Amino acid sequence: MYRDRIRNAGLYNRIVTADEAALLIRDGMTVGMSGFTRAGEAKAVPLALAERAKREPMKITLMTGASLGNDLDKTFAEAHLLSRRIPFQSDPGLRKAINAGEVMFVDQHLSETVEMLRTHQLPDIDIAIVEAVAITETGGIVPTTSVGNSASFAILAPKVIVEINLTQPLLLEGLHDIYIPTKRPHREPIPIVAPEGRAGLPYIQIPPEKIAAIVITEKLDSSAKVTPPDDETRAIAGHLIEFLRHEVKMGRMGTDLRPLQAGIGSVANAVLHGLIDSPFHDLKMYSEVLQDSTFDLFDAGKLVFASASSITLSAEKHDEVMPNIGAYKGRLLLRPQEISNHPEVVRRLGVIAINTALEFDIYGNVNSTHVGGTHMMNGIGGSGDFARNGFLSIFVTKSTAKDGKISSVVPMVSHVDHTEHDVGILITEQGLADLRGLAPRERAALVIRNCAHPSYRDALADYYTRAAARDGHTPHVIEEALSWHAALRERGTMMKD
Amino acid sequence: MYRDRIRNAGLYNRIVTADEAALLIRDGMTVGMSGFTRAGEAKAVPLALAERAKREPMKITLMTGASLGNDLDKTFAEAHLLSRRIPFQSDPGLRKAINAGEVMFVDQHLSETVEMLRTHQLPDIDIAIVEAVAITETGGIVPTTSVGNSASFAILAPKVIVEINLTQPLLLEGLHDIYIPTKRPHREPIPIVAPEGRAGLPYIQIPPEKIAAIVITEKLDSSAKVTPPDDETRAIAGHLIEFLRHEVKMGRMGTDLRPLQAGIGSVANAVLHGLIDSPFHDLKMYSEVLQDSTFDLFDAGKLVFASASSITLSAEKHDEVMPNIGAYKGRLLLRPQEISNHPEVVRRLGVIAINTALEFDIYGNVNSTHVGGTHMMNGIGGSGDFARNGFLSIFVTKSTAKDGKISSVVPMVSHVDHTEHDVGILITEQGLADLRGLAPRERAALVIRNCAHPSYRDALADYYTRAAARDGHTPHVIEEALSWHAALRERGTMMKD
Ligand SMILES: CC(C)(COP(=O)(O)OP(=O)(O)OC[C@H]1O[C@@H](n2cnc3c(N)ncnc32)[C@H](O)[C@@H]1OP(=O)(O)O)[C@@H](O)C(=O)NCCC(=O)NCCS
Ligand SMILES: CC(C)(COP(=O)(O)OP(=O)(O)OC[C@H]1O[C@@H](n2cnc3c(N)ncnc32)[C@H](O)[C@@H]1OP(=O)(O)O)[C@@H](O)C(=O)NCCC(=O)NCCS
Repeated sequence: MYRDRIRNAGLYNRIVTADEAALLIRDGMTVGMSGFTRAGEAKAVPLALAERAKREPMKITLMTGASLGNDLDKTFAEAHLLSRRIPFQSDPGLRKAINAGEVMFVDQHLSETVEMLRTHQLPDIDIAIVEAVAITETGGIVPTTSVGNSASFAILAPKVIVEINLTQPLLLEGLHDIYIPTKRPHREPIPIVAPEGRAGLPYIQIPPEKIAAIVITEKLDSSAKVTPPDDETRAIAGHLIEFLRHEVKMGRMGTDLRPLQAGIGSVANAVLHGLIDSPFHDLKMYSEVLQDSTFDLFDAGKLVFASASSITLSAEKHDEVMPNIGAYKGRLLLRPQEISNHPEVVRRLGVIAINTALEFDIYGNVNSTHVGGTHMMNGIGGSGDFARNGFLSIFVTKSTAKDGKISSVVPMVSHVDHTEHDVGILITEQGLADLRGLAPRERAALVIRNCAHPSYRDALADYYTRAAARDGHTPHVIEEALSWHAALRERGTMMKD
Repeated sequence: MYRDRIRNAGLYNRIVTADEAALLIRDGMTVGMSGFTRAGEAKAVPLALAERAKREPMKITLMTGASLGNDLDKTFAEAHLLSRRIPFQSDPGLRKAINAGEVMFVDQHLSETVEMLRTHQLPDIDIAIVEAVAITETGGIVPTTSVGNSASFAILAPKVIVEINLTQPLLLEGLHDIYIPTKRPHREPIPIVAPEGRAGLPYIQIPPEKIAAIVITEKLDSSAKVTPPDDETRAIAGHLIEFLRHEVKMGRMGTDLRPLQAGIGSVANAVLHGLIDSPFHDLKMYSEVLQDSTFDLFDAGKLVFASASSITLSAEKHDEVMPNIGAYKGRLLLRPQEISNHPEVVRRLGVIAINTALEFDIYGNVNSTHVGGTHMMNGIGGSGDFARNGFLSIFVTKSTAKDGKISSVVPMVSHVDHTEHDVGILITEQGLADLRGLAPRERAALVIRNCAHPSYRDALADYYTRAAARDGHTPHVIEEALSWHAALRERGTMMKD
């Protein structure tokens, strides 16, 4: 009876069906669920719950690590199950409900959710649902492909549902390092001084009697849709590598660089992929999610260690890596997102943070979340955790979107996720702007020249010239600052006729 | 020959006049100077340098801790001495030159400047000028009323000028704790786990042979102009205390609260002053600057310890406190601003961060720096270091400015220093909005109702209603979002006729 998966015989009697387990969740509850960047989310119980909500309307507050796979957020939205969603999502269906004001979405730095939970500054968790590879003899929960917020959810919740996923290889056991900071005001330093540093246990330790139900499932993680590198993302990677070579030449780092963090998404994946053909070696990652590119870098002999909070792979890469995941032991570590993204550790290690912008402005402010200043895309995720505290804070984006109708370089961003104080380097396929140590007027010249698409460059230069004639540390023609976004809304394009 | 002040006899021969010392500074150099919130700045050499610059034009890049006293920044601006100024200032004259684009001002998080310097991401310091109480037998420099960035400037510069200020009491010796983080990538945790924690030496240790000149001066620190609490700041303090009482009642903290940080300025000072008549006790501060209110709290028996990077007092308080500063030993500590503001320590201690906004918007974004979105006031200072990592992130402001012609609560801020992700509580004299765990639409209702001035409330509600009708996670009438600022610029008021 899954003896290798449930090693505490006292827990056998907790095994129930997903439907039965879902009954533990009642209208109005706050639920903490595993799942980070579509990896390691609980699957069977949430689906059963959504089915039930279709029959008998109910609402919950749902907290996760980050985004969920298996179209869960879509299914929840369709079942009108969610009143509140925290702290990240990336589903088109849920996005629609959020933008319609139907679901209250709280978009948070990923390192901060459990810190607020722990101090009762968010609603207390009534029940946690955590996907696991196994439960140990002592009742320790061994997570699967992500850790996310699962550990703190399970520790803080009075009741825990565990989903044992038989498709998740037992070989994952030992890859996790579950360290939870001690409670303030008596908190000790986090004892991690290198990406490979271990400080905790390989499982989530909770009193076994809190495990209220165990559900066996065989649902796979969703696979990531990885867009292969194109000319533009290759150009972005090229500019980044040229820049890093220059930094090495200037003596600011060695050819092993600094621990790398890269955001999720096709651009970030392509940029990391580009490092395969770079002169750098003995690289380490201290990131929040590992994509295909991480394993390509391992296989190319470039990468020596990777620490993150989740592994999200394409179907192809998944089939290649997962059966051999044991071969990566000693080179791979999954941590709670509070630790993978912790300002203390990110700053101490001096991470090179590479994240993706929707748009940035001529002064270096970055919008990662709001299309047109109003419509939520995914959320800030961990980008702010890394950008604020990184050794280098790099943002990448293509210079245009939607067939050129949108310039990703604008006079003023329509929403700010990363302020000018937190942004060092901007890169598009057009080129790179190194803003470190520059004043806003200097930045504007550089961003327009190096990063803007040629079809928008003159309009930006014209804006800046008229703004600068008006005086000000950060010159703006204030009544025109958001006119590009207004034009997009009214005419469907930022392009002048 | 100042034997109590210069205890290393081998250094006597370095004593020169301010004019002579100023000759060490040449056109094009990068100068690192002591001084933080108008306390402990070098005085004689900078003034001599400005005099020289009036006769023989020259330009320098000037880095300090934060703002300077004795009208130094004004004098520098008048002498056209500065090409670049990093990382903070608060002088009306320099502000003018910055806004005219004459001086390139790099507005940084105060914890980050030396981190960038150390890794050569800012111009290397050619010479440091540090005010001191004394030089020890081993050549250790004992700072005066601020530490700021002085330690790292002195460590990184090849040459150091020391200004021994005879007006700064020798009793200050022992109040400082000079701890410098080890270099990355081999950095250890910062070993400070409480406001009173000590980790370094009471002086800045550099090889004595780097001391190129010693100048004796008797110029006083400037005194702070402290505006006494008025009805509005008293109301703000009242709302804050009511809120903190509620937090204590909810069990989120004890009556000793959490370590307090408060920004500079009259509002913050008044708010801290308000704690004298509160039910809280055994308070501690982990802040960047200590104002009059700190000593009032000590004297009222409310405060048991205060850690910061500088002490800035009114003339009256100065005369009362400084001759008795020895009486505060064991209760007072001055640290490098990298440590007083360090994300690692601020997060670990769980600081209550109280900072002042120029304006905030209905969704909780805060502008602390740019009047009308374009004109620099002072800079972000340390507000971001604390707001991002604090246990509570509180921003205060009066609900209107300039006799009601400006609403400090606007549809969209014209510049963002603190994003919605970093802002927990907003307070004006009208009331308090607790934004924790709320989505943007929920925040808008609360901010308009609780914080806006009655004369702007309807216009804000009207804006929000029309925006929300348009759809979006953060609803805006994008073409109107900055129209209040445009109106201010064109008509001198945000008030509708
Ligand atoms: C910004 C972000 C949405 C970019 O995603 P990506 O997959 O790398 O980049 P893409 O260029 O494919 O852009 C994604 C979509 O945004 C659109 N887009 C890009 N720039 C845009 C702009 N300036 N205005 C409007 N839409 C834009 C693209 O057209 C694309 O639309 P589609 O989904 O309809 O095709 C994504 O990186 C993100 O959510 N970032 C915030 C969270 C984060 O950084 N986390 C850190 C680590 S996980
Ligand atoms: C925001 C800040 C300027 C407020 O200063 P303060 O002395 O507390 O507050 P005041 O209400 O007196 O405002 C200062 C000035 O700004 C003006 N002002 C306030 N709100 C304004 C607004 N929304 N638009 C334009 N001007 C505004 C006031 O009228 C006043 O002008 P004056 O100097 O001509 O009289 C100041 O706190 C600051 O510089 N903060 C950023 C740095 C920081 O927070 N550091 C953290 C710790 S030191």
